Amino acid sequence: MTNTSESNALPLTEAQIARRELVAEKHAQARSLLQKHGIDVWLTFSREGSDLLLPYAMGGEYLVGQAALMVFAEGPSVAIVADYDTGQVEGAFDVIHGYHDDWLPVFLDTLRERNPARIAINYSESDSGTDGLTYGLYLRLTKALDQIGMADRIESSEPITSMLRAVKTPLEIERIRRACAITQMIFDDVTAWVRPGLTEMQVHEFINERMQAYEVTPSWDASYCPSVTTSRHKPGHEPPSDDPIRPGDGLQIDFGVFFEGYASDLQRMWYFRKPGETEVAPDQQHAFDTMVEAIRMAAQLIEPGKRGYEIDEAVRNYVKERGYTFTHALGHQVGRLCHDGGLLLGPRNARYGDRVTGEIVPGMVFTLEPCIHDLGVEENIVVTEEGVEWLTPPQSAVYII
Amino acid sequence: MTNTSESNALPLTEAQIARRELVAEKHAQARSLLQKHGIDVWLTFSREGSDLLLPYAMGGEYLVGQAALMVFAEGPSVAIVADYDTGQVEGAFDVIHGYHDDWLPVFLDTLRERNPARIAINYSESDSGTDGLTYGLYLRLTKALDQIGMADRIESSEPITSMLRAVKTPLEIERIRRACAITQMIFDDVTAWVRPGLTEMQVHEFINERMQAYEVTPSWDASYCPSVTTSRHKPGHEPPSDDPIRPGDGLQIDFGVFFEGYASDLQRMWYFRKPGETEVAPDQQHAFDTMVEAIRMAAQLIEPGKRGYEIDEAVRNYVKERGYTFTHALGHQVGRLCHDGGLLLGPRNARYGDRVTGEIVPGMVFTLEPCIHDLGVEENIVVTEEGVEWLTPPQSAVYII
Repeated sequence: MTNTSESNALPLTEAQIARRELVAEKHAQARSLLQKHGIDVWLTFSREGSDLLLPYAMGGEYLVGQAALMVFAEGPSVAIVADYDTGQVEGAFDVIHGYHDDWLPVFLDTLRERNPARIAINYSESDSGTDGLTYGLYLRLTKALDQIGMADRIESSEPITSMLRAVKTPLEIERIRRACAITQMIFDDVTAWVRPGLTEMQVHEFINERMQAYEVTPSWDASYCPSVTTSRHKPGHEPPSDDPIRPGDGLQIDFGVFFEGYASDLQRMWYFRKPGETEVAPDQQHAFDTMVEAIRMAAQLIEPGKRGYEIDEAVRNYVKERGYTFTHALGHQVGRLCHDGGLLLGPRNARYGDRVTGEIVPGMVFTLEPCIHDLGVEENIVVTEEGVEWLTPPQSAVYII
Repeated sequence: MTNTSESNALPLTEAQIARRELVAEKHAQARSLLQKHGIDVWLTFSREGSDLLLPYAMGGEYLVGQAALMVFAEGPSVAIVADYDTGQVEGAFDVIHGYHDDWLPVFLDTLRERNPARIAINYSESDSGTDGLTYGLYLRLTKALDQIGMADRIESSEPITSMLRAVKTPLEIERIRRACAITQMIFDDVTAWVRPGLTEMQVHEFINERMQAYEVTPSWDASYCPSVTTSRHKPGHEPPSDDPIRPGDGLQIDFGVFFEGYASDLQRMWYFRKPGETEVAPDQQHAFDTMVEAIRMAAQLIEPGKRGYEIDEAVRNYVKERGYTFTHALGHQVGRLCHDGGLLLGPRNARYGDRVTGEIVPGMVFTLEPCIHDLGVEENIVVTEEGVEWLTPPQSAVYII
């Protein structure tokens, strides 16, 4: 791969057009957040795709050279990128500088001219999803800003970027909805195909084939997505076993896909009848009903203005009354990452810290996953002005095989 | 995806065994580098897979919770990870602490007990490949170290990690060799199939199908890998066109694949004869010969102890004498990233800075790509004690269609 070329003026592909529309939505959102917080510029400073906020800043993540992408509260946005990278930011920024040898002069000139009093850069101690700037680049950046007396103007972009990640625009919600729909189609394919005697590994491989057919990729590490676990095993981040499924087993699949950069994260339950059985084993049915009811309760409780821990607390108490516990958070956000960071629906403790105290806002997408014992049901919802909307219909009955 | 499970004691898969062997090689290398530099511990501090050095530290990149992975110059290595992540580091570390709520107490206890005088962490201003620590995590880490009076003991791990990245172990070289072999097989498939009338886009899609067949993924952004360009267009990071290939066109493909986490990065040239032609158009042949000769010269010049810019300078002069120029570096390193960072074979200028002044060391893998005009040939070599070894046989004649 060489870095020599200039960009061509080729006609835009559909994907490029979609990308530009999405960037335009996110930049408009960023400008409005900058104005709200009185911050003058949001600066993404990256090289070799190092900053996980690049998709929000430019609609892609493929910039090789040192880059400075700036969205200002007022006035034209500016991208400073290596000359061979200009094609990647075309259409996304009002002004594009493609440097050949050195990014620094044009960067300093731009800042001198625009003279921002507050410069927001991508770091956060508590939220991994907005902590995109590397420490080496932080040093490089502050040395550059020192040359023009602006090093003391930087601050964390978290107030901007956490909302950029969290509050999905209509185009983003549509992509997550599609990711959920494809995930559910693959679950349905599993239901039509799976039988006792097959192994967790075979189910895993079947789902991989279905992903290829639907042209999607897993929304977390492929070794554990899908996570396929029968009720005699422990679910989680371990490879599937070669132990055949037996009648009387439950089956749990934790799985999601990326559709055009956006993730889904769902869990479903199956049950394999023993000879003569017509229903799910009572213990599994009771656990399933508890989870479904807990999810329904969460969906009813969630509304703009409530805090993350409030939802978790109510649901956790209900699950406890039913004789179960779950030790993890009730739900996390989903977006360009499966664990999209920011506000959690979780308990107040050292593990989750201040990640559960924030306010729920319309446009946030959450998982609801009060998983108990080693069984799991998980749904994805988007917060609306009034409450929530399911991103795919929730599971209401165990799939019986 | 929930985070509740404990790890299962399942039998190891072949991939897990291979991963452990590789981690053992890299940890041994890290210990030896730590001893050489008098540094006591190499610390990788990450969450949600945030540090690009995780594959070297643990043989994977999938740690969800806050993690501290420590390889000491002397004594047992230690991994501190969330309880649900312990399965990811099993076999890679001598001591594994899986915390439930809070990583901090066990982290501080470990450091108090081992009392390292010099703590190397992953940041670098100049080398993106070793700049893995985010600034938010840097702040979190230094606050933690402050509690035990060790914040002033940290320094950049670059002397360790740049060599860990650059100096490939036998298992790593084998993987890159396989990646190169598969890339060449796909080039051969193209040669057998491609005809005038097909478009760049169709060649692009054909290569995508071949990647699926060989079960490999592109070694850089899929939109531009392969980069398929006829001689009437400009190669680079732009999508392929729908303009059909005509007799008299040259075709250049810049392409690489990942095989078990390791990349290849090769370029090949084709020529489509006009009716009656038996040979390549003279201008394209002359350019091709120049590149092949320049690559041969580079391969002869490279040996341990020489500096990156020395090789570039000699080759650049030769190419200039032949009436061409190339503006980018002669070669970059290849490894877990296609642009693996560290030492470059490049010219001394502001763009490349001190990245071209380092010493060539056995085990480094470089591209050689003196691409001129809009034509390109690119080879991959590994440095040996005596000189270089080709990782796949170099192209010696234009493929004539």
